[in-house]
Amino acid sequence: MNGLKVVGIVLGAAVILAIGLLIGHFGIPRDPKWVKELAQDLDEKFINQFMNEVDNKRIEDNLRILSNKPHYATSAGDEELVQLMLSRWKDPEFGLDDARDERYHVFLSFPDAANPNTVKVLTQNGSNPFTAELTEEKLTDDQKDPDILQPFLAFAPNGSVQGKLVFANEGKVSDFEYLAKLIDLNGTIAIVRYGGTGRVNKAINAAKFGVIGVIIYTDPKDINDGKSNASDTYPNSWYLPPSGVERGSFKENFGDQLTPYYPAKEFTYRIPESEIKGISHIPAQPIGFADARQLICELNGAQAPDNWQGSLGCTYNIGPGFKQNRFDNSDFVQVNVYNKRIIKPSSNVMGIIRGAVEPDRYVLYGNHRDSWVHGAIDPSSGTAVMLEITRVLGTKLKQGKWRPRRSIIFGSWGAEEFGLIGSTEFAEEYYSKLRDRTVAYINVDISVFANATLRVQGTPPAQSVVFTASKQVKTPSNSLTVYDNWKNHSNRTSPQYGVIPQIGSLGVGSDFAPFIHYLGITCMDIAYTYDRRVTSARIYPAYHTAFDTFNYTAKYIDPGFFSHQTVARTAGNVLLRLSDSLILPLGVKDYVETLEGYYSRAESFQTNLSKYNISLEPLKTEINRYKRAAEDLEEKIKNLKKSDKSPYNIRRINDQLMLLERAFINHLAFPDKLYFSHVLWASRSSSVATFPGLADAYQTAVESNLKQHWDLVHHHLTIAIQAVSNAASTLEDVTKI
Amino acid sequence: MNGLKVVGIVLGAAVILAIGLLIGHFGIPRDPKWVKELAQDLDEKFINQFMNEVDNKRIEDNLRILSNKPHYATSAGDEELVQLMLSRWKDPEFGLDDARDERYHVFLSFPDAANPNTVKVLTQNGSNPFTAELTEEKLTDDQKDPDILQPFLAFAPNGSVQGKLVFANEGKVSDFEYLAKLIDLNGTIAIVRYGGTGRVNKAINAAKFGVIGVIIYTDPKDINDGKSNASDTYPNSWYLPPSGVERGSFKENFGDQLTPYYPAKEFTYRIPESEIKGISHIPAQPIGFADARQLICELNGAQAPDNWQGSLGCTYNIGPGFKQNRFDNSDFVQVNVYNKRIIKPSSNVMGIIRGAVEPDRYVLYGNHRDSWVHGAIDPSSGTAVMLEITRVLGTKLKQGKWRPRRSIIFGSWGAEEFGLIGSTEFAEEYYSKLRDRTVAYINVDISVFANATLRVQGTPPAQSVVFTASKQVKTPSNSLTVYDNWKNHSNRTSPQYGVIPQIGSLGVGSDFAPFIHYLGITCMDIAYTYDRRVTSARIYPAYHTAFDTFNYTAKYIDPGFFSHQTVARTAGNVLLRLSDSLILPLGVKDYVETLEGYYSRAESFQTNLSKYNISLEPLKTEINRYKRAAEDLEEKIKNLKKSDKSPYNIRRINDQLMLLERAFINHLAFPDKLYFSHVLWASRSSSVATFPGLADAYQTAVESNLKQHWDLVHHHLTIAIQAVSNAASTLEDVTKI
Repeated sequence: MNGLKVVGIVLGAAVILAIGLLIGHFGIPRDPKWVKELAQDLDEKFINQFMNEVDNKRIEDNLRILSNKPHYATSAGDEELVQLMLSRWKDPEFGLDDARDERYHVFLSFPDAANPNTVKVLTQNGSNPFTAELTEEKLTDDQKDPDILQPFLAFAPNGSVQGKLVFANEGKVSDFEYLAKLIDLNGTIAIVRYGGTGRVNKAINAAKFGVIGVIIYTDPKDINDGKSNASDTYPNSWYLPPSGVERGSFKENFGDQLTPYYPAKEFTYRIPESEIKGISHIPAQPIGFADARQLICELNGAQAPDNWQGSLGCTYNIGPGFKQNRFDNSDFVQVNVYNKRIIKPSSNVMGIIRGAVEPDRYVLYGNHRDSWVHGAIDPSSGTAVMLEITRVLGTKLKQGKWRPRRSIIFGSWGAEEFGLIGSTEFAEEYYSKLRDRTVAYINVDISVFANATLRVQGTPPAQSVVFTASKQVKTPSNSLTVYDNWKNHSNRTSPQYGVIPQIGSLGVGSDFAPFIHYLGITCMDIAYTYDRRVTSARIYPAYHTAFDTFNYTAKYIDPGFFSHQTVARTAGNVLLRLSDSLILPLGVKDYVETLEGYYSRAESFQTNLSKYNISLEPLKTEINRYKRAAEDLEEKIKNLKKSDKSPYNIRRINDQLMLLERAFINHLAFPDKLYFSHVLWASRSSSVATFPGLADAYQTAVESNLKQHWDLVHHHLTIAIQAVSNAASTLEDVTKI
Repeated sequence: MNGLKVVGIVLGAAVILAIGLLIGHFGIPRDPKWVKELAQDLDEKFINQFMNEVDNKRIEDNLRILSNKPHYATSAGDEELVQLMLSRWKDPEFGLDDARDERYHVFLSFPDAANPNTVKVLTQNGSNPFTAELTEEKLTDDQKDPDILQPFLAFAPNGSVQGKLVFANEGKVSDFEYLAKLIDLNGTIAIVRYGGTGRVNKAINAAKFGVIGVIIYTDPKDINDGKSNASDTYPNSWYLPPSGVERGSFKENFGDQLTPYYPAKEFTYRIPESEIKGISHIPAQPIGFADARQLICELNGAQAPDNWQGSLGCTYNIGPGFKQNRFDNSDFVQVNVYNKRIIKPSSNVMGIIRGAVEPDRYVLYGNHRDSWVHGAIDPSSGTAVMLEITRVLGTKLKQGKWRPRRSIIFGSWGAEEFGLIGSTEFAEEYYSKLRDRTVAYINVDISVFANATLRVQGTPPAQSVVFTASKQVKTPSNSLTVYDNWKNHSNRTSPQYGVIPQIGSLGVGSDFAPFIHYLGITCMDIAYTYDRRVTSARIYPAYHTAFDTFNYTAKYIDPGFFSHQTVARTAGNVLLRLSDSLILPLGVKDYVETLEGYYSRAESFQTNLSKYNISLEPLKTEINRYKRAAEDLEEKIKNLKKSDKSPYNIRRINDQLMLLERAFINHLAFPDKLYFSHVLWASRSSSVATFPGLADAYQTAVESNLKQHWDLVHHHLTIAIQAVSNAASTLEDVTKI
C-alpha cells in the first residue's frame, strides 16, 4: 500500500466516522428518559378502552351488595361497607395504590328504638283516636329488616307538644304570613308538606309565628304526579307508597356541628350544643301521606288557597283544629320526639392512585357511603359507579398499563346524610394541601335519579371538560350522544357558544359543598335524571324512605343499569381528562359569562346606589380585565408550540388554571355564614342572581334605608371587586405587576 | 481490488460508522436546550462578583440624594423620590425589566402649620409661663428646611385639654396602677417617656385611669446613655440634642385604617372613622427632653420609684402639679392638638426582574421610602442599599450576563411611617398571586443602626440562608466573617446546632408585617446594629427627629459606609440564593426548635388544663409528626441524585418548602386581631412564649376561671394542633393520605 492509499483510507474512514458521529448525535432521538415521561399527555385510546370496559352488570352487582342492608352512618351496615370499600381498593388484582379509613368523632342524632317518636290525636278526655304509623308498610322483604330506623328528622329537638293543628302548605315564611292574617298560630301544631324551602327552615319559620310543633309529610301531588292509591305506587310503580316517609337532616349548616372549621378528632374542642346555629328549637316529625290524609282531610277552618291544595283527595282547610267529624273539634294533635344525640366515630374511606408525573396534583372523586335506609339510589347508585370506575382503572394500574399524570384521590364519605359531615371533616383536616394541590373535585352521589338525560352542576371552569366527555358517550336510550341528548332536555343560549346544555349551579346538596364553598376547588356533580315532560316529581319518589332499594332501582329507576353505565363512562372520562391531560382542561374563560351576567343584574341597583355615591364602574373594569386575561391565557394555550411545552411552562399555566377558583375565596367576606367563602357562590337570600353578598346587602338596605346598611352594600361591592381582581391577577402574565 | 478486499473495506467502514454512531449518540451530550436551562442553579461565582461590585461610595451617593430633603409620605420630597426610583429602575444601562408606581388613597394625619400643636403651662390668671418648643433647634442647615413637619403624633386626636401634670414613667398599665394607688389621676395630664410599651398604648392606658392628655418625651437615660448636655450631643456626638423630638404614628394596627383587608383604591369602601380600633381618644403630643426637664423637674408630690428616675438631672416626683418654685402649685399644663386627617394618594414603586425558568415564583425585596424628616437612617439607609443592589444586578441583566431563575420584585413602599400602609395595601391588592407564588420577603428598612454587627429578624426557614450568606461576607471592622462576628455579639444555644447567632422574631416594626402575619410568607429583616457593650440606647438617638440626616449618618453612624456595604452584600447574597438556587434554601426543619420550645413552655399549663380534661398530648403528637416530615424532606433533598432533578420533582419540593409558612395561616383564628393570621407569630399579651392564641386564652382563663374561658383555651389548642398538622401535611410525601 502506498502512502497516498493509506491517506485515502484514513480520510475515508474519518469521513465515515464523522458521518456516523453526526447521525448518531443528531439523527437518533435521545432525550433523557424523563423528558419524554414528563410530556405524558392524555391518551384518547385509553379513555375509549376505559369506557368500553365499564360494565353495567358489575355496577348492578355492586349495587346489590351495597344496598343489601340498611347502612345509615355508623351502623353495622355502614361499618361492613367500610370493610367492603377497603377490600376492593386494596385488591391486588384491581385495587388502587393505597387505601385507608379515617375516623372522625361526629355529632349525630337517632330515634330511640325503645321510645319511638309519635304523632297522635288526643281528645280532651285523654283518649287517642289516631296515632301515625311508626314504620313504613312491609311491602317487600326489604321493609322487614330489623335495622331500619324509624322515620325521623335528625337533630330535631326532643319534646312533647300538643295544640290545634293547622295546615301551613310548605312552611315558607310567606305561608305562615298568610295564615297569621287569618288565624292565631300561637300554640298550634303545623302540618307542612315537603318542598318549597329547606327541611329545617319549615320549623324555624314556624317557630317565629308561635307554632310549637311541626309535622312534615310528602304530598302525592309533589312526589307522585298526583297518584296516591296503593295500586299506583311501589311495588306497582316507581311512586311512593302511602306509608313512605322521607327522613332527613334537620339543620341548616353542613359539617360536624360541634367542631366548625376543625376536624372532629377526639381531642378537638367542641362548642356547647346551645351555641349551634341554624337548627329548629321546636319538635318536628315526618309522616307518610296516608297518615297526613287522616289529619289534613279532617281540618276545620277556611279553605286553603288553590296553590296549597294537594292530591290527598280532599279539600285542604287551614284549621285550626278539626271539623266535627272523625275527630272532635276540641281534639289536639300531639308531637312527641325522643331523638338521642350522640357523638360516634364515622369513617371516610380514602383510595389513592399516585400520579406518575405530578403526584402533588390531586383530582378528587367522591361520594358518600351512608344511607338513611337501604339507600340503593341515595347514595349507593353513586358508589356502585365509583367502584366500577376504580375496578377498571385499578386493573390497568395493577397490570402496569396505565398510571395517571396526576394523583387521583377517591373518597367514600361518611355521615353525609347528617349534613355532609365526612367530606367537611376531610376538607378541614387537609385544608392546606387540598387548597394548594387540588385540580378539581368530581361528585357522583345519586348517579341515576332517572334514565332520561345527563344532569351536571358545577362551576364554569368544569363546563368544557364535561362537554367534551359527554360528546364521547352514547345515551343508553337512543342514538344520540349524551351531550346532544342533554342539550335537547336542558339548554341555554350562551352569548359565546350559542345553544348549549345547561349546567346548574352548586348549592349545598351534596359533598361538593365544603370543596367549593370553603376550599374554592372547582367542583362538578354528575348524574342521570328525569324527563321533565314525563314527571314533575320533586325527586325520585322513594328518596330517603324504606323503599329506596335494589329492587326499586332495578325495576323502575334503571332496568339493565345502562344509565349507571353511562354516568360511569361520562364521569370516568372527565376524571381521566383531569388527571391525564398535559394542560388541565379547565375553561377559565367560561367564568366571563357568569361575571357579566352578575354585572348586568347588579345594574338594576345602580340608581339607588348613586344616591350614596356608590358606582358599579370599578366592578365592570375588573370584569373586563378578567375577560382579557382569560382570553389571553386561553389563546396562549391554544397556540402552544412544542418548544413551549417545557415542564415549567406547563406547570405555570396549570397552576393558573387550578388556582383560578381559589382566587374567589375570601374567608372574611361572610362572617355569619359558616364555611361560605366563595364570593360568587355563597348562599343568597335575595332573588337577584348576582354576587350574593352584594345582592343580600342591597336587599337589606332597600328595606331599612339605614346608612349602615348602604355602607354594607359598599363593603360587599368592594369584596366583589377584589375577588374579580384576584382572579384576573391569577390569569394574567405572571410577571405583570 | 478483489472481492475479499472490498468486503473488508465495507466491513471496516461499517465498523467505523457504527463506532461513530455510538459515540455520536451516547458520547456527546445533547439534551434539549431547555433541559439544560431548566436545571439552572445558583452560580457562586456570580454571587462573588455581585458582592465585589457592591460599592460603598455609591451607597453614600445614594443616601446623599435620598436624604437631601424631608420626604414624609405624600410630600413633594416623597414624590421626587418616586420619580428617582422610577428613573433608576427604568435606566437602560442598569435598570430592571420593568418598573411602575402604584397609588393608593390612604388615610393620613399631619400637623397644621397654621395652627401648631402646643404644650403649655398656664396659671390660674391665664398667663403662660412656659410653652414647649414648636421646632427642633437649628443646629445645622438641615434643621432649617421649611418642609420639616412640626413634631407630632400622627392620628393623635385633636383637642385642648388642661389639668395637673403627673409623671407616669413609660405609660404602662403597671405604671398607672402604681400612680392610681397614690394619687387621683382623673383629669390629669400625664407626661411619659418613650420605651416600655408602644407609643399609642401609653395614651390608651392613660385614658383608662382618667388621664385626659399625654405628653411624651425621650429621656436621655434611655436614648443618650445618660448624656443630656448640648456639648455631648449632636453635632458633637451621635446623641440626641435636647430639642430633638421623636415623631411617630399613634395607632395600634397597621395598614390603611379606613380600608382593612382591601386596597385603598378611590372606590374602596371606607369604614367610618368612629369605627377605627386601636387608637387614642385623648390628645397627645411629643416634646424634647429640654422641655421635659422644665416640666418634670418642677413636679410636686412623692418621689417616683428608683426605676422611674431618668437623666434629666433632678429627682423625678410623680405630681400631681408643680411644687411652688418656677411655677405655681395651682398651674395647669395644657395640651393642644390640631392635627389634620386627610386622604391622600401615596405611591409604592415596584421594580421587576423576570425569572428565566420560574417567572411565576417571586422573591420580594423591599423597604419603605417615606421618612418623618430627612430620614437618612430611617428609611434611606435601606433604600440606598436597595438601589445599589438593583444597580449591580440591573447592570448584569442589561448586559445579558445574568437572569435569575425566579422573578424578583422590588418594592419601595409608601407611607410606612403611618403604619406600614404601602406594603399592606400591596399585600391586599395582590393577595392571591402573592400568596400562591412568593418564596420569601426580604426587608431592609434601617440598614445600619450602628456599625457593630449584623442583626436579623425572621422566621426559622430563613435562618439557614442568612447563615450561609453571612459566612461569605467579611465584617468591615475586623477580620471575622459577618457570621462569626454576629455570633460573638448575639447568640443562643440550639439543641441541634450548638451555639449559633440569634435570629429575632418578627413583630410589626416594619413592612414585613403584612407579609408574615397576613399572607404567611417567610420573611426576614436585615440590618447592622449596636454593640450592646458600648451603648444601651433604645434606638439610634436621632430616630424620627430632624437630626436623622446625611451628615449624622456619615459622621457618626457609618463613616465610609462600610456597614451599608456589608448589609448590601449580605442581603443581596440572600436574595440571589433565594432567586437562583435550584432547590429553595429554606430550612423547614428549623421550625422544629420553635415548635418544641412552644410545647415545653405550654407544658406549664397542663396541671390546670387537666382539671378541664384538656390534654396537650395531641399537640405533641403533631409536633413529632412535623419533625419527622421535615427531617424526611431535608434528607430527601440532601440525597437528590441527578436523575431525581427532573423539573417536576424540583418544583414539587420547592412548593413544599415555599408553602410551609402558609400552612400556619388561619384567617379565622384571631377574629379580633386585625391581619394577624399566623398561628405561631400573632401578637401575644401573655408573657409565656408559646402559641399566642393559647397563651393569651390561658392567661384570661386563669384570671377569670370561667368555663367559657377554659373553652376558649381548648379552642385555641385545637387551632394550634391543626396549624401544626397542616404544616406536617405540607411537608409529608405528597401521596400520603
